Amino acid sequence: MEMKLPGQEEFEASSAPRNIPSGELDSNPGPGTGPSPDGPSDTESKELGVCKDPLLFIQLNELLGWPQALEWRETGRWVLFEEKLEVAAGRWSAPHVPTLALPSLQKLRSLLAEGLVLLDCPAQSLLELVEQVTRVESLSPELRGQLQALLLQRPQHYNQTTGTRPCWGSTHPRKASDNEEAPLREQYQNPLRQKLPPGAEAGTVLAGELGFLAQPLGAFVRLRDPVVLGSLTEVSLPSRFFCLLLGPPMLGKGYHEMGRAAAVLLSDPQFQWSVRRASNLHDLLAALDAFLEEVTVLPPGRWDPTARIPPPKCLPSQHKRLPSQQREIRGPSGPRLTSAEDRHRYGLHAPSQELQRTGRLFGGLIQDVRRKAPWYPSDFLDALHLQCFSAVLYIYLATVTNAITFGGLLGDATDGAQGVLESFLGTAVAGAAFCLMAGQPLTILSSTGPVLVFERLLFSFSRDYSLDYLPFRLWVGIWVATFCLVLVATEASVLVRYFTRFTEEGFCALISLIFIYDAVGKMLNLTHTYPIQKPGSSTYGCLCQYPGPGGNDSQWIRTRPKDRDDIVSMVRKGLSDFSSVLAILLGCGLDAFLGLATPKLMVPREFKPTLPGRGWLVSPFGTNPWWWSVAAALPALLLSILIFMDQQITAVILNRMEYRLQKGAGFHLDLFCVAVLMLLTSVLGLPWYVSATVISLAHMDSLRRESRACAPGELPNFLGIREQRLTGLVVFILTGASIFLAPVLKFIPMPVLYGIFLYMGVAALSSIQFTKRVKLLLMPAKHQPDLLLLRHVPLTRVHLFTAIQLVCLGLLWIIKSTPAAIIFPLMLLGLVGVRKALERVFSPQELLWLDELMPEEERSIPEKGLEPEHSFSGSDSEDSELMYQPKAPEINISVN
Amino acid sequence: MEMKLPGQEEFEASSAPRNIPSGELDSNPGPGTGPSPDGPSDTESKELGVCKDPLLFIQLNELLGWPQALEWRETGRWVLFEEKLEVAAGRWSAPHVPTLALPSLQKLRSLLAEGLVLLDCPAQSLLELVEQVTRVESLSPELRGQLQALLLQRPQHYNQTTGTRPCWGSTHPRKASDNEEAPLREQYQNPLRQKLPPGAEAGTVLAGELGFLAQPLGAFVRLRDPVVLGSLTEVSLPSRFFCLLLGPPMLGKGYHEMGRAAAVLLSDPQFQWSVRRASNLHDLLAALDAFLEEVTVLPPGRWDPTARIPPPKCLPSQHKRLPSQQREIRGPSGPRLTSAEDRHRYGLHAPSQELQRTGRLFGGLIQDVRRKAPWYPSDFLDALHLQCFSAVLYIYLATVTNAITFGGLLGDATDGAQGVLESFLGTAVAGAAFCLMAGQPLTILSSTGPVLVFERLLFSFSRDYSLDYLPFRLWVGIWVATFCLVLVATEASVLVRYFTRFTEEGFCALISLIFIYDAVGKMLNLTHTYPIQKPGSSTYGCLCQYPGPGGNDSQWIRTRPKDRDDIVSMVRKGLSDFSSVLAILLGCGLDAFLGLATPKLMVPREFKPTLPGRGWLVSPFGTNPWWWSVAAALPALLLSILIFMDQQITAVILNRMEYRLQKGAGFHLDLFCVAVLMLLTSVLGLPWYVSATVISLAHMDSLRRESRACAPGELPNFLGIREQRLTGLVVFILTGASIFLAPVLKFIPMPVLYGIFLYMGVAALSSIQFTKRVKLLLMPAKHQPDLLLLRHVPLTRVHLFTAIQLVCLGLLWIIKSTPAAIIFPLMLLGLVGVRKALERVFSPQELLWLDELMPEEERSIPEKGLEPEHSFSGSDSEDSELMYQPKAPEINISVN
Repeated sequence: MEMKLPGQEEFEASSAPRNIPSGELDSNPGPGTGPSPDGPSDTESKELGVCKDPLLFIQLNELLGWPQALEWRETGRWVLFEEKLEVAAGRWSAPHVPTLALPSLQKLRSLLAEGLVLLDCPAQSLLELVEQVTRVESLSPELRGQLQALLLQRPQHYNQTTGTRPCWGSTHPRKASDNEEAPLREQYQNPLRQKLPPGAEAGTVLAGELGFLAQPLGAFVRLRDPVVLGSLTEVSLPSRFFCLLLGPPMLGKGYHEMGRAAAVLLSDPQFQWSVRRASNLHDLLAALDAFLEEVTVLPPGRWDPTARIPPPKCLPSQHKRLPSQQREIRGPSGPRLTSAEDRHRYGLHAPSQELQRTGRLFGGLIQDVRRKAPWYPSDFLDALHLQCFSAVLYIYLATVTNAITFGGLLGDATDGAQGVLESFLGTAVAGAAFCLMAGQPLTILSSTGPVLVFERLLFSFSRDYSLDYLPFRLWVGIWVATFCLVLVATEASVLVRYFTRFTEEGFCALISLIFIYDAVGKMLNLTHTYPIQKPGSSTYGCLCQYPGPGGNDSQWIRTRPKDRDDIVSMVRKGLSDFSSVLAILLGCGLDAFLGLATPKLMVPREFKPTLPGRGWLVSPFGTNPWWWSVAAALPALLLSILIFMDQQITAVILNRMEYRLQKGAGFHLDLFCVAVLMLLTSVLGLPWYVSATVISLAHMDSLRRESRACAPGELPNFLGIREQRLTGLVVFILTGASIFLAPVLKFIPMPVLYGIFLYMGVAALSSIQFTKRVKLLLMPAKHQPDLLLLRHVPLTRVHLFTAIQLVCLGLLWIIKSTPAAIIFPLMLLGLVGVRKALERVFSPQELLWLDELMPEEERSIPEKGLEPEHSFSGSDSEDSELMYQPKAPEINISVN
Repeated sequence: MEMKLPGQEEFEASSAPRNIPSGELDSNPGPGTGPSPDGPSDTESKELGVCKDPLLFIQLNELLGWPQALEWRETGRWVLFEEKLEVAAGRWSAPHVPTLALPSLQKLRSLLAEGLVLLDCPAQSLLELVEQVTRVESLSPELRGQLQALLLQRPQHYNQTTGTRPCWGSTHPRKASDNEEAPLREQYQNPLRQKLPPGAEAGTVLAGELGFLAQPLGAFVRLRDPVVLGSLTEVSLPSRFFCLLLGPPMLGKGYHEMGRAAAVLLSDPQFQWSVRRASNLHDLLAALDAFLEEVTVLPPGRWDPTARIPPPKCLPSQHKRLPSQQREIRGPSGPRLTSAEDRHRYGLHAPSQELQRTGRLFGGLIQDVRRKAPWYPSDFLDALHLQCFSAVLYIYLATVTNAITFGGLLGDATDGAQGVLESFLGTAVAGAAFCLMAGQPLTILSSTGPVLVFERLLFSFSRDYSLDYLPFRLWVGIWVATFCLVLVATEASVLVRYFTRFTEEGFCALISLIFIYDAVGKMLNLTHTYPIQKPGSSTYGCLCQYPGPGGNDSQWIRTRPKDRDDIVSMVRKGLSDFSSVLAILLGCGLDAFLGLATPKLMVPREFKPTLPGRGWLVSPFGTNPWWWSVAAALPALLLSILIFMDQQITAVILNRMEYRLQKGAGFHLDLFCVAVLMLLTSVLGLPWYVSATVISLAHMDSLRRESRACAPGELPNFLGIREQRLTGLVVFILTGASIFLAPVLKFIPMPVLYGIFLYMGVAALSSIQFTKRVKLLLMPAKHQPDLLLLRHVPLTRVHLFTAIQLVCLGLLWIIKSTPAAIIFPLMLLGLVGVRKALERVFSPQELLWLDELMPEEERSIPEKGLEPEHSFSGSDSEDSELMYQPKAPEINISVN
């Protein structure tokens, strides 16, 4: 907050192209047939805030109290959605999708057709405007005077700044003569003002029944230059549009509904675009007719028109609103994916440019370095945000927990050849080096998971053959580094294109399950070691509670619409950034307050290798025969496969399209760094490190950027990730420093730290599509959510795919837990093979929905489109659904 | 199931007037101005299945495969909502509200205007129909032949009976010559058939592109006599309407959308009504225009037309679709409640006819007896349903638990003057007698709650004065019975009209909290008495789990739409009826399987009074001085107040409008029974009994009748309660018999029974509006649900009202728990006083939304309506919302 001015971030959306949601910025104008050939792309960009047309705030002022006490009252307002003033309750309704009655639109059309239309009216004040508008033949001079006085009367706005009781802008309605043009203080203080981007304009609709009029009076004015019209609008904004709908009393709520119709029309981006460029009445009516052509109609018997529809999660793309001919020229829609550009538009994960083979030795590595180098300064500058501070705390605690628990495990597994100190030191050195050098600096390295299992196997092997472990391990490391360098040189990383969602999700589910298993196992162990003394007391409340609030908080933050009260909202955002840290502190506080005998975080007090008598450098042979250095190549081959798979699957997951990373990936560079670190850690006798899926995802998630300035009802936009090297670097420096921080860290109870693991594991597991499909297995068909994939793939096929994934996961888990774990790397490779074999069981259409396509399959797709039955089933509507419901959210592996 | 034939219940809805939801059957036709003066009421009744117009099943067959392989395929169907065939996934979509594009409706209109309209077509077969339809001038004889052949081709229906793979009615599409008129076996086996009431008719829309046509061909046919048209429709139903929309290929999906528009039109009740009575093209187009007048329009930029809207919980009332003039004549809408009839229509709780004072001594009692007597035989016949069997089991267990726990408490509190045996015997005798005689036989009597507290106080008082307790108690009972008889004689029960929701909810919350407190307290006690031996094992899983599955099951049953597969659905309904019993059996089974050392239900083994040495009759004086029999009048007065309040508040809750009780209440008769039983139990030295709110609600809830035959997407209708005397009677006979059932009952663990208490308490507490408002206290404004009351009452006022209720509840709880409990009855009366005082704090409008009005307030409401600001705020739409969103669901105190 100290580093960014308030209100600065919120308009990031309007300047940088990276803020445009995928699928929205497809603005190559095709040959037009409609009335506004290049309109829609224009309109789109405007709506996205990229350019030209300003945002419009629309307000409906109604004339009420006829005949005794005529006054104007604001009764509704629109930016994207409708807000209705609830008079009795004294508050604005929740924003909702406006619904209209068709006759009100038709009545409005005929009133405008017969009324006064002033386009580019030169009025400079409300007085001038009112004079122009009332210059109608049908009015006698006397009536004109009365009407002018009425129009100049200050409208009553519901003033939300004054508190919770309903209260109006001014308690004594002014008389007509009181024509004050200066905006009021309330108009400036209106919190809505902060929600609107600079340059926003206002449109006002005045509607009501006026007994002295003999016939209806309609006027539509577009001001040439936007002018602040005194206190006409609730917020002090320059007005662009002015619409007057008055007439003699009629049955029903005619003018109210007509006024709403006019306001809804003005809030429509397409209509706005057209009417800003309209040159005469005909254009105006054409725009209205174009709107009518596109409305959705709900039948009266099956839908109650008064029901309030909450704002949809995604607004429909303006691209869809083109005439169909234009759309066809612009390119196929739906799952007919033919180019990388298309894939990008739909937010699908796809091999990026970075994965094109150059054909030269180390060509990929060189490209990676070239691509990343220009970003290097910004990799540090972009970290100047309070959120990064919170991320550091969160990830630091996760990393330290990781180092201490898996360090302990490693120590047990290797009889002290590795240990907690090595774990801390290795994490700090390897992690910091990786953050400084790697292609994807958001990656957090760790020695968890499959590598740990492999190390355990290697140790028992060396013990079986009475080998000196660390020297043997050094040679394994040397060979692994060599193999990895060969993989870098030969650009083997381009093969990650074969890692489809099937592989990623299988791997991610496995790692998440290991996290959960370990966390729960550790905690259950604690109940034996530290039995609960007081029955019925909430001794372990701290650890059970942790995942709850943390998870809830962050989800809540992500989905809630923005508060009108911006200060509270800033405070809330700040708290939400720290929700995990707060939960940890709460846990520690509770532990200290209750004085529980929980195990605390213990870090070593002396800086020396765990194994007594060894130095920091491992001797190359020790007591081993020399030929073991050659034989080490065999386990090194398996470990290389493992490291390649582990590292690259994680890298693919981290570099997913939907994270909207701007600075590109560096698969070759990452692997190169891992190889170098492999060598370094082998020489120093430290644990081996690869990218950790779950912690890295948590890291990225704690660095999400979201738009803050949202129109009421609009959900905050995900803008991207704060891509930088600093948070990781600081985390690992802190980890290194922790070796000397024992006095402080001893207050942190271990159960709280296991809670972090459990939370991260559950969050990662629950965010993958695989989990959703597993739930489908247990759900009767009619209770299943309306997932797009279920509309396109028969349920039995979905279940079959899920079952195969489950079997693979089970096999991996079994292999990991048995002596056969040595072939685990090969089994990971096997996942890709299984996926390949699935092509014989499932059709490409099915795989496209359930997974993604492998490179060969993609080439085999005919240009005409993937789903021939589409021509039968009449699902054009669904094709277009894809465009704003990209598959991305379904496969979003993020810690939410 | 043995007592009712399958499919019998499902059509109850179509025969009995009691099935009509309140607010729907307001069919006094006003002077009409529209084209169909008495139409709407007619249409309504038809939709409700009461009469004349049969239900219409509409099917869209599309012509696909032009030009190579022309075939008709069913792609959509409608009863109330739209179901779309998802070709790729091979299943019907979930039912959803159909959405149309406005142009498709307009195109349909012009096609019909130029096309062939045959009303009362005499065709008797598909062949004749096709001949009539193709008799168009524009067709050459050759084309006509081709077209006829095409129309006679058998359409492909997605056949859902054959399993999960997509599969079509017949695999080899027949040739045009193969003109078989007989319906197919699949048509009869279609499970949809069972969902449609007898007499349902079909409408078929045929749409598609046909290359050899030079110009569009539209035809609309109403058959004079509905005829089964071979295999044209998916279900074998007589067809009434036939709509043909063919033409040369055009851009977009014109014919598909036009076909959908025609189908949606036909599925609209108002259009259906009009078109059944149309005599020429003009009428048909007028009906279409009337439909257009009423559609709801969603703006294109704010709503995606392809989004599928799930069916609303309540369908809009057809009453609303009248022209507004008519509506105004028909009576005020919204909260302007002027007559009991209006109140009834809105489902508001209101003093019923039963609470009119007659002015004669025992006049109310006599009226009650007269009202209930004619129902007496049906009170036993109506119990012949399997559901009653389940209800008996559930309520029996609750009653036995109640008897044993509170019997135990009573025994402790009275040093054995009362005891478990007395509790069993008293429950059986009093309960059975009440069920046989009372005005509201669904009531379950119990000695829980305030009466128990009072008895405890009375005992300690008698001990303080060294009184012989039972004789003293006999005199208190005699006095109470006398006072109660006076209350009956003076028709004091009409005062229950002063028990508004404020009082009811306060009382209900108190009783629920006592249930929860006791259940949790008992269970916590058990953890001390029977400590958990195995750490980490799920010893108490049985009791913790219980409320979960039970609650979920029943809720799930209540809200889920009906399954297509009727057999599974019957099975499911059966299971759901027994969900609570199953949960109990599961608990018992788990307990037995794990061999847990839980306390079991223990019933006394000998049939004799708990107090040694006393007989079954209490001596009138014992050792007490005679004047104590007079002094007993004073505590008896307090107890009378308590019993009156307790009994009548419960009776008001049980006789709420929203339960749609048909047989009327009997407030005076109930109180009379309580008085008589008071005397009886005092003489026998058994506990005193009054109506138990929570168990009675559970009893009623277990006897809910719901419609089974629902169109896809329609929620089952609540039809009422099985009002009868048998379930209660059997429950109490079983309770009495339980005294001798010790060997069987000893397998039931007490924690399972406490689970029942906990469940009932939580269910009752969570269903009252008070609980919702307490949640609002803790919720930021923007996260609050869109409750109607929040639209009309400022939040601070809502909070103030809730806070006052909370304070009252807290006071009641404190008084109940302290020695001051003796004045508890007066405090209950005080609740009514507090409510009266609230009239000075809150406006009548606010009280109408937060509570209800007291009799005086009601009279003070001007005829013109309650909310003057309505004329300002333009909330006519909300008024009408009330009509189908009655407040009833908010105040529905039911165990769900």
